[in-house]
This record gives sequence, structure tokens and C-alpha cells, in this order.
Amino acid sequence: SKRIIAVLPGDGIGEEVTAEAVRVIEKLNAATDAGFECVHVPVGGTAYDLHGTPLPEDTLSTARDANAILLGAVGGPKWESAPRELRPERALLGLRSELSLFSNLRPAILYPELADASTLKPEVVSGLDIMIVRELTGGIYFGGPRGIETVDGQRRGFNTMEYTESEIKRIAHSAFRAAMQRDKRLCSVDKANVLEVSELWREVVTKISSEYPQVELSHMYVDNACMQLVRAPKQFDVILTTNMFGDILSDAASMLTGSIGMLPSASLNADGKGMYEPVHGSAPDIAGQGIANPLATILSVAMMLRYTFTENAMADKIEAAVQRVLANGLRTADLAREGETPVTTSEMGQAVLDELV
Amino acid sequence: SKRIIAVLPGDGIGEEVTAEAVRVIEKLNAATDAGFECVHVPVGGTAYDLHGTPLPEDTLSTARDANAILLGAVGGPKWESAPRELRPERALLGLRSELSLFSNLRPAILYPELADASTLKPEVVSGLDIMIVRELTGGIYFGGPRGIETVDGQRRGFNTMEYTESEIKRIAHSAFRAAMQRDKRLCSVDKANVLEVSELWREVVTKISSEYPQVELSHMYVDNACMQLVRAPKQFDVILTTNMFGDILSDAASMLTGSIGMLPSASLNADGKGMYEPVHGSAPDIAGQGIANPLATILSVAMMLRYTFTENAMADKIEAAVQRVLANGLRTADLAREGETPVTTSEMGQAVLDELV
Ligand SMILES: [Mg+2]
Ligand SMILES: [Mg+2]
Repeated sequence: SKRIIAVLPGDGIGEEVTAEAVRVIEKLNAATDAGFECVHVPVGGTAYDLHGTPLPEDTLSTARDANAILLGAVGGPKWESAPRELRPERALLGLRSELSLFSNLRPAILYPELADASTLKPEVVSGLDIMIVRELTGGIYFGGPRGIETVDGQRRGFNTMEYTESEIKRIAHSAFRAAMQRDKRLCSVDKANVLEVSELWREVVTKISSEYPQVELSHMYVDNACMQLVRAPKQFDVILTTNMFGDILSDAASMLTGSIGMLPSASLNADGKGMYEPVHGSAPDIAGQGIANPLATILSVAMMLRYTFTENAMADKIEAAVQRVLANGLRTADLAREGETPVTTSEMGQAVLDELV
Repeated sequence: SKRIIAVLPGDGIGEEVTAEAVRVIEKLNAATDAGFECVHVPVGGTAYDLHGTPLPEDTLSTARDANAILLGAVGGPKWESAPRELRPERALLGLRSELSLFSNLRPAILYPELADASTLKPEVVSGLDIMIVRELTGGIYFGGPRGIETVDGQRRGFNTMEYTESEIKRIAHSAFRAAMQRDKRLCSVDKANVLEVSELWREVVTKISSEYPQVELSHMYVDNACMQLVRAPKQFDVILTTNMFGDILSDAASMLTGSIGMLPSASLNADGKGMYEPVHGSAPDIAGQGIANPLATILSVAMMLRYTFTENAMADKIEAAVQRVLANGLRTADLAREGETPVTTSEMGQAVLDELV
């Protein structure tokens, strides 16, 4: 059976960073019988310029037929005046909902070589390796009723935070499976002391845990979780949480590392199909200069190998190659400190290729 | 007119820390014509033991008749098996709602002398002085409809995040007034790119800002705000936000300081009446030993002077006295580093009194 990867470079530095990631995939093809096939299609502002929509039908069907999607980044000032429903970012929402990508995996890893980049003390964050599993297609961002109404002569804004048992079950399974691939500790974050939706969340997650007896489950309130991320982030292995809490916590966790150019992400459906993309955006200010950091996108390929293709050995090899490149002192501009000479996007990509053995 | 302060020591270390704060108030009485009158009443588990309820009618009416309330802390393992509606913590909810204390002021201050205690690098947090204004009686914690229902054979949990224009207006005024007392920069935190309730929030806050032309208003999404608190917390002066976002952000901000024993708080109504309390809890593990840190409660008195009695000069004096005590090297056990000999609760209280000139 074919192993098709839809490559959606998108906008800004998306083109440059996915190019390096594709070179990594091609090297795996050459060195093994992995047999990955990459199909390039446009998305975001680039697709809007070509076809009048950020998510053309051909792009969506290519993504749907593929086993995995590698996305660069979308957006930029060029498309800020586009109608709201045709903005580049809508393509991401469209892909997530059309492909039911409900499980967002957001690792926060801080390689000891880059510990300096964090605003936290090195002993608190060096070697950090946590994974936040965020529910991505439900919760208050999508719940109803919602709106702004007028009651007794004054307006009232309202949104609904909601989860059904089946929504909680599927994200819980996804998080337990991720924990099984790691240190087998899962912390579910909610606000069950105040919110009924969290009460149900906690009950269902606890029930699912009986199917994963090797995983140690704990629960934490969201305000405390945010404190603990600042106080002692290395206490966590996998954090499971809702869409909105995950939005907040995963951004906080990524900032703990101080190196957003290093962070990959995955958005998975129930069958392990996934969209993989760097956390950083399209960075229009440095696009086209060949200086962007391709490591987050290359590490997104490692996640793809692990979570969609269960090629854990290949994933390990990519991650080890990245680590060696950093240990060798290579730094793109975003990582370089004063006095360090930055390498280009393709030099960094080539260095990873050279370490991939 | 009388200036009555209801003193509610509560449970655990509450008694010890409020005693030192009352000595500060008495010294102000002796040295000036301030004329504060302290009335002591029980609250929390202590009140439950005495009267079978954590918020006796006499305590509530004393609090209602007072100009300000000084609260120690409530709760402890002794009362964990009490019925839910009679738990010590219910007294806080009762006081907040009965007195309409909708504006929660949570400063996060890190004295340079204590910068080491933070998990963040000293240059990032030393001298931190921000104020989070959290709406305390509305939002998703109180909104309806809410519950767990069964639809098509499966359960669905739901809560409602809601704000009316008048709720937003009054908390906005409170935040703008706080900003006027400080550096005159207000950052309103919401999720207006996704939530209608935030859209209304942003619109109303923006409208109210025209009444405070001296205050510079900005807006930030909650996920970004949480990142910015980790990345560069000193960029903020006053942060205004909703109940739940404020719950998360104020706890994260307090953890930035690393010294939760130092942090005061205020909960105000529309008339400037307020309840003042340390952020730390009742700490039953060290209760009765005379080693608790009284500074958060003493700093709560400073907030009381500033926000209820508009005695800014007195507030300044207390804060300056605390700073000098720290500069002199005095540390209670929670602040003492290896090799430093901690002082007792009353020694710390006495040191502040001695510096109060
Ligand atoms: Mg976010
Ligand atoms: Mg809290």
C-alpha cells in the first residue's frame, strides 16, 4: 500500500522550511524501503492568489486521500484584507474539521544546548520534554448556543463550553496512546471543582484509564496546571486537556522553551491520519531570505513517522540527528546568540541530512 | 464617620498573620488620627466549629456594616468531610456574592531582594510589579444554563460563559481606576477572535476607555497573554480580564514571583468597599507554630488603605517598611534560603512596625 504525504507549503517561510523536510523524507526513501510519496498542493494565501480560496477542492481531496499531511504555515499581511471566510487561516480550520483532526499533539521540548534561550532558569527547564494533547474540534470554540443578544435593554454575550461523552472518549484514547509511547504518565487538566462539563470530562477520562493500566493517571485544575508549568514543568509527561485550556497551556508550554522555531505539532484523527506542522507561523518578515529555521518542520516529519506511520526507529533517527546538529553548534538566526554566526535554512537542513545515518 | 474594619482571621495560620496586620493598623491609629476600629468575628472552619456554619449571620452583618474586611485564610483537613455547602471555602463565596465583591485585584510584585525565589531568570522578573484585575462574580463559573444532560443516549456536559454590558462596564471602571493609581497602562485580555462573549467584552471595554483618556488601553488574546507572562512579564502594568481567564492568569502571575507568601489581594464592590486577604492559604501544616509569613497580610492592609480608605501615603509607608525589612535581610521560613536563619511571624511583624515611621 502506498504511503502518500500531502505537502502543503503554504505562505511565507512555509515554502522554505517544508523544502528541507521533504529532503529528509527523500533521504529516508533512498536509504530504506519506506516508499513515501510526496504530493505538493497549494494552501492558504498562496492558494487564494491562485484559485480564489485558501483551501481549493483539489487541495482538500489530495489531503483527504493522503495518509499524512505536512503543512508549512499560512497567513501574512498580504491577505489581511481578504474577506473573513477567505483568510489563509480558514484553510487550517477547514482541514481540521473536514478530516476530523480532533487530537492536537503539542510537544514542548528544550534541548539542553538551547536551555539559555528560555526565560526560566536552566535547572528548571533544561531537558524539558512534555507533550500537551489538546482537543481541537469541540469545546467552547465550537459550542452553541452562542451569540450576543439583548435582554431587558442591555446586551449579553454568551458561549457554550460543551463536551459529549464520545468526544471525551476519543481524545482520552488519543492521549493514553501518546502516553504509552512515552513515560506513561498522563495528567488530565480541567476545572471540575466548578464546571459540570469538566466533571463529565474527569469521569470519562477516569473510566477510559482502566483500559490503559500501565499509564498513571492524575488530575489537575487548570489554574494550578498553569502555575505548575511555571514552577516545575519537568514534573509532567503528557497533559490531556480541552480545546480552550489546551490553547492556553500549550502556548505557555512552548514559551517555556524560548525557542518556538524548534517546536513541531500534530493534529490527528481517530485512525492515526494526521496533519503535521511547525508551531511557528509564516514569518513574512523573513520569508524568501533563506534564513528560517527548518528544524520544527523536520521534527514534524519525525512526529509523522511516529504517529501516522509507526516508524518509531526512523523518528528516533531524525530526532537524534537534530540533537547532534545542535550539539555541533549549528544555529539558525532565531537561535544564534551574540557572537555566533548563523547558518542558512538549507545549511541547517543539509546538516541534518548529513547526520541521518 | 467611623472607619470600621471587620477582621476575620479564619483558620490555620489565618489567626497568626492577621494578628500582625492588626498591630500595623493599631500603630497607624496611635501615630495618626486615622481612627480605624477593628471588630473581630469568626469565619470558615473556626466559625463552623463554633456556630455550625462557615459564615454565621453575625459575621456577615459585621462584614456588611464594616468599611473593609481583613480576612486571614479558611480551610483545612479538619473540615474536609463537612457537607459541601458548609465547607470553610463557602464563606468566601458567600461574602463575595452578598457584598457584590466583583472586582478582584491581584498584584504580582517581586521585590529585587527575593528575585532568586523565582523559577524565572532574575533579569526577567526582578522588580516585577503588575496588577491583574479579575472579574469575580460572573462569567462561566456562575453562568447558565449548565449541567449534564443525556442526548441521544449519551451524556453531554455544558456550561455557559456569559457577560452582560453592565457587568463588563463595572469591572472595566474598576480596572481603569486601578490603572489611574499606577502606570496608566491597561491590557484587556479576552478571546475575541473566537468567542462572542469576548467580542462584547472588547467592545464595552473600548467604549469605557474614552472616560479615561490618560490610560493607554491595549487588547490581547488569553493564550498570547499567558505566553507573554512567561516571556516578558514586566511589559504589563494592569491586566483586566474575566473570571476564568483571571483565575488562570493571576495564579500564573503569582507563581512568577516564586514567593506566594508575599502576595496580597483585594476584592472590591462598586463603592470601594473591599475584602482584603493574602493569596496564600491557611497552611494547616505550619499553623500554630508562629513561623508563618505575615507580609502578604500586612501588604493586604496597604491595599485596603489605598483602595478603600484612599490613604495612599499610609499605604506607601507600609510598603516601604516591608521593602526595608527585606533589604535588612529578614526572612521568614518560606523565604529563607540555605544558611539563612528564619525569623518568626511576630519578629517579622515587629520589624515592619519598627520600620513604620
Ligand atoms: Mg493559541
Ligand atoms: Mg485559582
